[in-house]
Amino acid sequence: MPVDPLAFARDLVRCRSVTPAEGGALDLLARTLAPLGFAVHRVTFSAPGTPDVENLFATIGEGRPHLVFAGHTDVVPPGDAAAWSAPPFAGEVIDGRLIGRGAVDMKGGIAAMVAAASAFLAARDLKSGGTLSFLITGDEEGPAVNGTRKLLDWTRERGVVFDHCVLGEPTSVAELGDTLKVGRRGSLSGTLVVEGTQGHVAYPHRADNPIRRLARILSHLYARPLDGGTAQFQPSNLEFVSVDTGNPAFNVIPAKVEARFNIRFNDRWTPASLRAHIEAEIGVAAPVGRWRVDWDPTVSECFLTPSGPFTQLVSDAVFEVTGRRPEPSTGGGTSDARFIKSACPVVELGLVGTTMHQIDEAVPVAELEALTAIYRRILERYFAG
Amino acid sequence: MPVDPLAFARDLVRCRSVTPAEGGALDLLARTLAPLGFAVHRVTFSAPGTPDVENLFATIGEGRPHLVFAGHTDVVPPGDAAAWSAPPFAGEVIDGRLIGRGAVDMKGGIAAMVAAASAFLAARDLKSGGTLSFLITGDEEGPAVNGTRKLLDWTRERGVVFDHCVLGEPTSVAELGDTLKVGRRGSLSGTLVVEGTQGHVAYPHRADNPIRRLARILSHLYARPLDGGTAQFQPSNLEFVSVDTGNPAFNVIPAKVEARFNIRFNDRWTPASLRAHIEAEIGVAAPVGRWRVDWDPTVSECFLTPSGPFTQLVSDAVFEVTGRRPEPSTGGGTSDARFIKSACPVVELGLVGTTMHQIDEAVPVAELEALTAIYRRILERYFAG
Ligand SMILES: [Zn+2]
Ligand SMILES: [Zn+2]
Repeated sequence: MPVDPLAFARDLVRCRSVTPAEGGALDLLARTLAPLGFAVHRVTFSAPGTPDVENLFATIGEGRPHLVFAGHTDVVPPGDAAAWSAPPFAGEVIDGRLIGRGAVDMKGGIAAMVAAASAFLAARDLKSGGTLSFLITGDEEGPAVNGTRKLLDWTRERGVVFDHCVLGEPTSVAELGDTLKVGRRGSLSGTLVVEGTQGHVAYPHRADNPIRRLARILSHLYARPLDGGTAQFQPSNLEFVSVDTGNPAFNVIPAKVEARFNIRFNDRWTPASLRAHIEAEIGVAAPVGRWRVDWDPTVSECFLTPSGPFTQLVSDAVFEVTGRRPEPSTGGGTSDARFIKSACPVVELGLVGTTMHQIDEAVPVAELEALTAIYRRILERYFAG
Repeated sequence: MPVDPLAFARDLVRCRSVTPAEGGALDLLARTLAPLGFAVHRVTFSAPGTPDVENLFATIGEGRPHLVFAGHTDVVPPGDAAAWSAPPFAGEVIDGRLIGRGAVDMKGGIAAMVAAASAFLAARDLKSGGTLSFLITGDEEGPAVNGTRKLLDWTRERGVVFDHCVLGEPTSVAELGDTLKVGRRGSLSGTLVVEGTQGHVAYPHRADNPIRRLARILSHLYARPLDGGTAQFQPSNLEFVSVDTGNPAFNVIPAKVEARFNIRFNDRWTPASLRAHIEAEIGVAAPVGRWRVDWDPTVSECFLTPSGPFTQLVSDAVFEVTGRRPEPSTGGGTSDARFIKSACPVVELGLVGTTMHQIDEAVPVAELEALTAIYRRILERYFAG
């Protein structure tokens, strides 16, 4: 009997897998995939300063092409549970909607993938006609250190080669399948430290106020947009997110001010070219020096999957089920696609994301079934030839 | 026997009157002034949130003119006592210099005033030919709430009228008597609070980054100096002393940023006209609003004592002793003259200030004696006729 997407999504929601807790979600996934014929691997990764995280890799079939369904079972905390219409981990269905933390992001997506795979495999033996895998992490909502990136390293070390990936994040905007995420901007963060010379406000000529120079730097950077966007991407954007001095005295010119910033950047840039550009512009605004940028080690590169047979195949599957052609998009925040793009071309396609991370996160049952149908069409088309 | 300025300064230095502690300094002063014929009043003031502070008012003679010597016996902490060449409260004389915390600021100045008064009174009976007073606080280096200001209120309530004041702060720059402080800029502080709308850095159009608007405000204010100075004063100056957001996340646009500033202003402005000007300029730079200024209640008004017979008399006394005419000055920080100016014209004249608030604060014995001579000449000329 094939896996029912609603029942499986509900069972997943009932697992309290608030990041980084496994919460039984990967156990359930393993117990469900194994009987379908998947070889299931459970892998735990560790790193100093971060919690240990469990991950799952499951695979069936042999040879190319190799399609991988990717996703995460960890969820963000429910917030005030009393504010929900139903308990956030009860998996209740009310008025045709499954309510619960992760219903949309992205236990619902995983349930649709598993249900689609079970239906597809019931109708057709994959054998040597290709490989289907699940790459599931418990570290997407957390620091993302012990998750997808390391799981991809783990598969690479074992000689696994992927041809294409569908990541099941809730990318639909207003209606299921209206959007196909074919890229994401990169993300780069840094702390600009401007040094000065402390002194008494009554004698400013004996001091050097770093806030005065920081103001010049901010004006200079704000006045010069990084770019006007590219064919596939919105303009890159720099935001200062915190300026901090911590000087409690009104009569003291401070010795230092720090300004933390984040840049979302498009395919016009690499992290290296962007770092060089920013430092050059700061140098123009503050020619006397006395500043440095401490670049944050966490960097997300930009990714872009060009239009081609694979994106066309996914678009056709969406059209067949919904009658709509998805709009290619590269907007929004980052996702684990930033890691997967180094292994193979990746697109993101999933549920409507409006309620994700909110109180009363919920997915309509009909939408869950339609997404299952889309994923099944993708499998059929992908392994048809 | 007249009071010896060195012995008395040394005895004062030995009182540990680190603000707000009395440390025996006012006791010593009272025990010294009473035998000279002064009526001595000890007054303690209190206010919520500040320490109680002792003050002293002593007066001799009758009628006008009424000259008041003003000063403070409290001192700043000694810092690392082990770094001093002699213990900071030992009052040792090494190589002709009295070393100790307060030697310059301003126990030395008070000692010179008391010694001058004792010598003057030994030679001449004041009787009904005028009044000489000492207005001494223990709250100059502290919050200045329970000191000179309240002591002036206390005298006013008792019908005391002052004609002129000499404040004994260490105003000399390189050599004794080179500078006569005839005014001080005012001081006004505020906190500019810029509000925004919090959001995720990947969706800046859904947020409103207050740092962006703060940067515009800072540029606008920095580009428009308050004035070019006046006949007697340096230009007014605005310094931002702290900008603070306290946002720990690189991916969140903050909801608020605060910028604390201090303005040192000249006689072109009153606190009210300055507040109005600053708010108008911020309004130009940030026309959409979403900001406010929390003005700090501590305000120092600007003061200026115009040239005239009194400043001439003081200048003549300096010239007679040192052969130098003091340069009138309005520079530097604030002092208790900001309070005294409302009671009577005030000038500040005292020791060379280079070592004040430093390790190894010290006054040459010869300078202490010369200042005593200057103060005595002031008394002689003031009460001559
Ligand atoms: Zn997600
Ligand atoms: Zn002082």
